[in-house]
Amino acid sequence: MSDRKEFRDLATPEAAHAAIDSLDLSPAPETVPLEDARGRVLAERIDAEIDVPGFDRASMDGYAVRARDTFGADEADPAELELVGAVHAGATPEVTVAPGACAEISTGAVMPEGADAVVMVERTDELDAEEDDGEGAEEERGEDDPDRIAVRTAVAPGDHVMSAGADIAAGARALGPGTRLTPREIGLLSALGVDEVPVEGRPLVGIVSTGDELVRPGEALDPSRGEIYDVNSTTIAAGVEEAGGEPVLYPHAGDDYEEMERLLRRAADECDLVLSSGSTSASAVDVIYRVIEERGELLLHGVAVKPGKPMLVGRLDRRGSEGASDESAGTAGARTGESAYVGLPGYPVSALTIFRTFVAPAIREAAGQPEPATATVEGRMAVGERYGEGRMRLMPVGLLDLADGDLPLVYPVDKGSGATTSLVEADGVVAVDPDTEYLDRDERVAVQLFSPDVRPPSLLGVGEDDPALNRLLDRLKNPRYLPVGSREGLRRLRDGVPDVAVVAGPTDREVETVDLGGWTREWGLVVPAGNPADVTGLDALVERDLRFVNRPTDSGLRRSLDDALAALADERSVPRGEVTERIAGYGLTVRAFESPARKVITGDADVGLGLRETADRLDCGFVSLGEQSVVVRAAPDRADRDAVRELAAALDDPADLLDGLAGYSRNSRNEP
Amino acid sequence: MSDRKEFRDLATPEAAHAAIDSLDLSPAPETVPLEDARGRVLAERIDAEIDVPGFDRASMDGYAVRARDTFGADEADPAELELVGAVHAGATPEVTVAPGACAEISTGAVMPEGADAVVMVERTDELDAEEDDGEGAEEERGEDDPDRIAVRTAVAPGDHVMSAGADIAAGARALGPGTRLTPREIGLLSALGVDEVPVEGRPLVGIVSTGDELVRPGEALDPSRGEIYDVNSTTIAAGVEEAGGEPVLYPHAGDDYEEMERLLRRAADECDLVLSSGSTSASAVDVIYRVIEERGELLLHGVAVKPGKPMLVGRLDRRGSEGASDESAGTAGARTGESAYVGLPGYPVSALTIFRTFVAPAIREAAGQPEPATATVEGRMAVGERYGEGRMRLMPVGLLDLADGDLPLVYPVDKGSGATTSLVEADGVVAVDPDTEYLDRDERVAVQLFSPDVRPPSLLGVGEDDPALNRLLDRLKNPRYLPVGSREGLRRLRDGVPDVAVVAGPTDREVETVDLGGWTREWGLVVPAGNPADVTGLDALVERDLRFVNRPTDSGLRRSLDDALAALADERSVPRGEVTERIAGYGLTVRAFESPARKVITGDADVGLGLRETADRLDCGFVSLGEQSVVVRAAPDRADRDAVRELAAALDDPADLLDGLAGYSRNSRNEP
Repeated sequence: MSDRKEFRDLATPEAAHAAIDSLDLSPAPETVPLEDARGRVLAERIDAEIDVPGFDRASMDGYAVRARDTFGADEADPAELELVGAVHAGATPEVTVAPGACAEISTGAVMPEGADAVVMVERTDELDAEEDDGEGAEEERGEDDPDRIAVRTAVAPGDHVMSAGADIAAGARALGPGTRLTPREIGLLSALGVDEVPVEGRPLVGIVSTGDELVRPGEALDPSRGEIYDVNSTTIAAGVEEAGGEPVLYPHAGDDYEEMERLLRRAADECDLVLSSGSTSASAVDVIYRVIEERGELLLHGVAVKPGKPMLVGRLDRRGSEGASDESAGTAGARTGESAYVGLPGYPVSALTIFRTFVAPAIREAAGQPEPATATVEGRMAVGERYGEGRMRLMPVGLLDLADGDLPLVYPVDKGSGATTSLVEADGVVAVDPDTEYLDRDERVAVQLFSPDVRPPSLLGVGEDDPALNRLLDRLKNPRYLPVGSREGLRRLRDGVPDVAVVAGPTDREVETVDLGGWTREWGLVVPAGNPADVTGLDALVERDLRFVNRPTDSGLRRSLDDALAALADERSVPRGEVTERIAGYGLTVRAFESPARKVITGDADVGLGLRETADRLDCGFVSLGEQSVVVRAAPDRADRDAVRELAAALDDPADLLDGLAGYSRNSRNEP
Repeated sequence: MSDRKEFRDLATPEAAHAAIDSLDLSPAPETVPLEDARGRVLAERIDAEIDVPGFDRASMDGYAVRARDTFGADEADPAELELVGAVHAGATPEVTVAPGACAEISTGAVMPEGADAVVMVERTDELDAEEDDGEGAEEERGEDDPDRIAVRTAVAPGDHVMSAGADIAAGARALGPGTRLTPREIGLLSALGVDEVPVEGRPLVGIVSTGDELVRPGEALDPSRGEIYDVNSTTIAAGVEEAGGEPVLYPHAGDDYEEMERLLRRAADECDLVLSSGSTSASAVDVIYRVIEERGELLLHGVAVKPGKPMLVGRLDRRGSEGASDESAGTAGARTGESAYVGLPGYPVSALTIFRTFVAPAIREAAGQPEPATATVEGRMAVGERYGEGRMRLMPVGLLDLADGDLPLVYPVDKGSGATTSLVEADGVVAVDPDTEYLDRDERVAVQLFSPDVRPPSLLGVGEDDPALNRLLDRLKNPRYLPVGSREGLRRLRDGVPDVAVVAGPTDREVETVDLGGWTREWGLVVPAGNPADVTGLDALVERDLRFVNRPTDSGLRRSLDDALAALADERSVPRGEVTERIAGYGLTVRAFESPARKVITGDADVGLGLRETADRLDCGFVSLGEQSVVVRAAPDRADRDAVRELAAALDDPADLLDGLAGYSRNSRNEP
């Protein structure tokens, strides 16, 4: 094992930031069509090249007049002007307004020559032959004859006219460099006639996948070879995009180290930044070291943060820069200079944490993008947390917004670094200083969210897993549910973080709760379709050589099973242990309500603990052992929260919630 | 003017929301590749279809053992196990761990048969021939002979092993419907092998441009015809995209009303929602009415909000629904049902305000997208504001974040609805209730930002416009500068909203300020290149028949000119008015520092008031009349703000700020 690299002399987090800041990720500015410019950042100042408006423009429907002609006019003594024509928006005026005359004008139209103000139509009257002289006079006037207009108000020169350039004039500063383009800036650019915009480039970020065991989502997976789906490449690619970069996923080289080396070199040539995430394979790490040593420089290896110790920062010279740089610099397409390289840890939460903390800010900076306002939120610790490892900890935490006007609750999430579900069970990290040994309950902390788009859930539930519960959760807005089992769920509820616990079967914990309602589900033994072994009940498990699969002790199903086994032991007048010892696989527990059934289907087991619903849906056989209630129990101090009331309301009419779920029936409240 | 529609019976804003809510904009869900799924919203629940991990997985580098073999082991008394081979990540184990044996294992590798725990490499020692028996013994051992391993700790079954499905098990609920996909959810989906995701569709929003006078940005503009660039189409398209819709810009029909009608019908057939923005042309409005009457229903016309009175809401049947719907429903590509229609006001700020208030929420709802957390911010009124029109006002406001721990300042922006610059001078709107007649200074208000990406500026400056100032502003992060002229700038500074005023030339206002520094600029008369009229000074303007273009009275340039004209009048012993009266165009003022020069270039004037810098840059002639100082003056209570200090620092070393600016020189502080 001598070839496994060990990290010594860990750098401080500040040194890691400084190392990354010392790298140049900035791409060249580019020009994009206006319709693609939203969200981009101006690379240079935009000055107006035209006057807006480009002409003296009527800003009301009415009559274009010489203001002087209206002086003294009022309701009692209107000024009468000769109507000489009309000007419409989008047309060249064909009339001139001489003294004593006026022209009908539409909002947006060009002011006709001579006119210097507009009278609103509401302050005028048409004076036609009819009004003036009665019916007879009309015949004397041709259709083209101008009417006269009575103006019942005085206007000053410029009234209801926007003069040329009054909005913005040619030569004036319109938008500064660094401006992020939102719809309104797009609007101003449109007004200026700009249809191409100089913006900061998006750094090209190459992502090289280095684990032998990784398979891209969508491809076939062989778990017997230890294959797992590649989580980091897609997660980090999405993070790169979010930070304003452009991700480039390089093909996965698997265990072909020559190909991996070729890809790393290619990525360095093509990208502003190359990322890989910690390979667990020593050979892959060797390839990375070799490429960095031959082509660039390793700036640091190892940072004193948890997680993230195995972080690498370096730079990679581009092919264009190798050897005599003058010769190759002119080669078409060959980029010169250097590319930055960061090696992220391998576990998904660690990789995303280190990316978010050290790399995303550098990509944003290079793209000219500001840190989003929602990237960090304040919260208060829901529980105390002890820590004392002497290096900075980026502690994964979940958030719960009680919507009570106070800061959201923050609680540590520690499922072990390898869990990908931590990605969605935690919302971000709290940076705990090396000197901080204890975070108090209610202490204010800043949570660096995994994404500015992460929203704290509105409801936190814990407890049993159940298909009807899954439906119930689908009807709520933004809930979080942790299927930790009934027993562990009640424990967590008692400790004060979640809103509700979902408890199945009997419990031995005394926890004060408010029952919100629930249902009853039929449980028993899941067997292969047709029940080939002719299992009739628990006796068969005890007496025959059947391979059983159990659920964990926190599960309500397990509790009901254990009660039934205890009854069986009583019946046989033997200690309970004697019964369970005879069941092959009693100690083999699997995680979710469908897991035992799936073991039965794959032939890995003969009998599994489970639900009639699961057996029916997966076309298995089923031996019923009874019914157990599933009750949603709220923490008393949370029962009146809106989100909890919504949950209760959804439960109160559960008819369709249980539709088609075999073995399910309505359970009235307070009847656990 | 009888064909101009008048709006009566204005609907309440609530009724307008209800009318839009009654329309169905929801597109069908769609399936997108995982790499395009970021930012989309899950249309249905995703359950795990596989166990993650798919096998019992080592979560540490070390040795796979039978836990029982380590019981009792400690530092003093290690257990010695026979090393029978190695298992690497991504490979099928080729060894079995029998009692007394162990296998080297890498993090992520499949647990070999027989083993039930992993001992960390740090708690083990390799016991090879060398250590055991000294040098000589090594020769006795072949290279393939197993070493033995000393295990210095006891482990329990399952230690450092993640069992199959422990992260998430097949059948378990992974993500709920309505989940917005951020990088972490992309990560979890990847772990499950999901490469295509069912997401809510993006509503197709057709944008029909209806003004005769509108020209698309990038095309040639004829201001003499009253043409202006189409601001609303691009602004609203960007807003649609931001809200989660997909904008479709239909070609501009100009004044071809048959074509416009055809486009409206086509948009209704193709889109979930059709938007047009208020045409000032009565004929265009008629077309819209006709199409709605023939094909659908007008739900409301006119809403009691300012701006936004002329808002229309209706629905348009699709062609597929006309006549016998059974016959046409099967036609390939023909969408049936109806499309929603909303007519927005014409002025850009009004259109964006109404879009943001009434339409964007409906698009977001249809797309399943949540209201962004940053769409609304709290602020405090910087000034009192009176209002009493009896209908709701959506008051455009600017924001200034003083970064003093208090809420940002909010001040009304009222440049007249027609100004496109209001788009960037305001940040959003405050909804003022019809019953609210007065907003007090310091009153807390909610500002609905024009975009969730809008950020309040960090510095607010007002005053003179100047090319060196433009450069200075380019060096600051997110400043806002309103070029209102020196005089108006000082007035506003005195009234307490801005941080700094930039003042050129002499002033008659006594305002207590802190001078931050500045420069001197040469001003005078801009004439055509070569000075064909041989203008030598102000005398020429007074004595000869030259067409002059002036700057407004708020401008510092104008103030210097007026002082020079007063001196000329003194010299001639005539009243000042007599001098100015003789200047043709003295009263003709244009907006920006380059505007007079541009009038000279186009031949619309013979002489313009301006700067040597402008004359030089635009290749005009110049007659110098003197120098004037430009001083940046801070409000005393703002002088210590970080943003103001940064401005002062940028000013303190202004050498390169003035590089290449003709007629500019350094001005020391406190020397206005």
